[in-house]
Amino acid sequence: MKSLYFHRSVRKYSEKPVDDELIAQILDAAIRASNTGNMQLYSIIVTTDAALRSQLMPLHFNQSMAGQAPLLFTFCADLRRFTLWCQQRGAEPGYTNFLWFMNAATDAILACQNACMAAEEEGLGICYLGTVLYNAREISAVLSLPSGVIPVASVVMGYPDENPPMTDRLPVEGVVHWDTYKDYDKESIDLIYKEREESDETARLLKINEKENLAQVFTQNRYKKADNEHFSEKLLELLREQGFLP
Amino acid sequence: MKSLYFHRSVRKYSEKPVDDELIAQILDAAIRASNTGNMQLYSIIVTTDAALRSQLMPLHFNQSMAGQAPLLFTFCADLRRFTLWCQQRGAEPGYTNFLWFMNAATDAILACQNACMAAEEEGLGICYLGTVLYNAREISAVLSLPSGVIPVASVVMGYPDENPPMTDRLPVEGVVHWDTYKDYDKESIDLIYKEREESDETARLLKINEKENLAQVFTQNRYKKADNEHFSEKLLELLREQGFLP
Repeated sequence: MKSLYFHRSVRKYSEKPVDDELIAQILDAAIRASNTGNMQLYSIIVTTDAALRSQLMPLHFNQSMAGQAPLLFTFCADLRRFTLWCQQRGAEPGYTNFLWFMNAATDAILACQNACMAAEEEGLGICYLGTVLYNAREISAVLSLPSGVIPVASVVMGYPDENPPMTDRLPVEGVVHWDTYKDYDKESIDLIYKEREESDETARLLKINEKENLAQVFTQNRYKKADNEHFSEKLLELLREQGFLP
Repeated sequence: MKSLYFHRSVRKYSEKPVDDELIAQILDAAIRASNTGNMQLYSIIVTTDAALRSQLMPLHFNQSMAGQAPLLFTFCADLRRFTLWCQQRGAEPGYTNFLWFMNAATDAILACQNACMAAEEEGLGICYLGTVLYNAREISAVLSLPSGVIPVASVVMGYPDENPPMTDRLPVEGVVHWDTYKDYDKESIDLIYKEREESDETARLLKINEKENLAQVFTQNRYKKADNEHFSEKLLELLREQGFLP
């Protein structure tokens, strides 16, 4: 299972189509994932239609791979199907609350990662679109998601038309804690981020972005506080409207 | 990658220890997972200490595998490490909000599923403990999680001492939607649940639980509305206290 240790996101895709058999195999892997009480609280939207993908692209902040990859999967937390089934059987459902939104989101994300693993093992490239949570309402409208269904993970797939290097990771001991959490101090933070901060890639980013340090690239350019709070409020509103938050 | 298509949860573990090299390999797979902006907004707590595991066991509703498996991993959404780094570099962080809790939870769950895949490929069994969200506050106390760190996925691992069958899944066409969501009607719900409802396993469950149908087993025995709302409120309180919800 080489791909598990050598994942990198692919952002340029060839025009070679992904055949139906392989898509079916990816979906089989997705539904085998662990899930809450075998309730399978997710739905998987597979969008191949060009017109729909071009509507979704701006909602994914015009990331080019959102339009260019042949396959766009949207994994949704879905409490609707299970709730309808309960109602139809005279059983009182109790799943329109935050805990069950989280359970369903977890189910959806586990299924999504299984799909990605299956795709990569078969030579496809994948890339997550973190933007799905930023514009969840607008994406829901394009995909006709009814109440009780929230998109939580989007991923594009296709045959790669580039061979990007693996990106770096923090040292494993920087993110793993044995037995209990050992809180970070000034020294350990410096140590964990040292290699990344001293890399050529960071030097390149500081030059392009005209910043003093890498943390500022994140907070001042990539993920700014005001934007974060704006998109957070949008997501909260959607969850409140659907009854998942009070 | 056979294990991807043949996953089943293992609830009985042998006493054979998992050697350090294999644990390291599992952690390597975990940190290679896709994550938000390569910020790695998670921490992984690997709990092997017997005393700690016996404190965690009741919080996981005394599921026997929580105490019996040699390894207990708790994957946490961790906005703390990144925030500390930003502060230490004079960059204003803006990640204490709901959107970034969800981003971090997603990172943690993706890393967790990678760890599970790596473990299963090497012959280990795994089982998710969905209970982590029910008692997140109490589990945080046992694991000394500071503010900004929320446990979102727990999983036990070890060599299996049982060979359980795969559980059923809903038919793939019952959870997959092409291009856009096609809402369910009475007929499609009946069709999707038909095989499960008519199975020997369901007949067995109805007899044991003295219920008329399988949906009632879920709503009246396994996941009751009042319990769901109670545990949901607990989780909301924790997130509010830490500033992830208003």
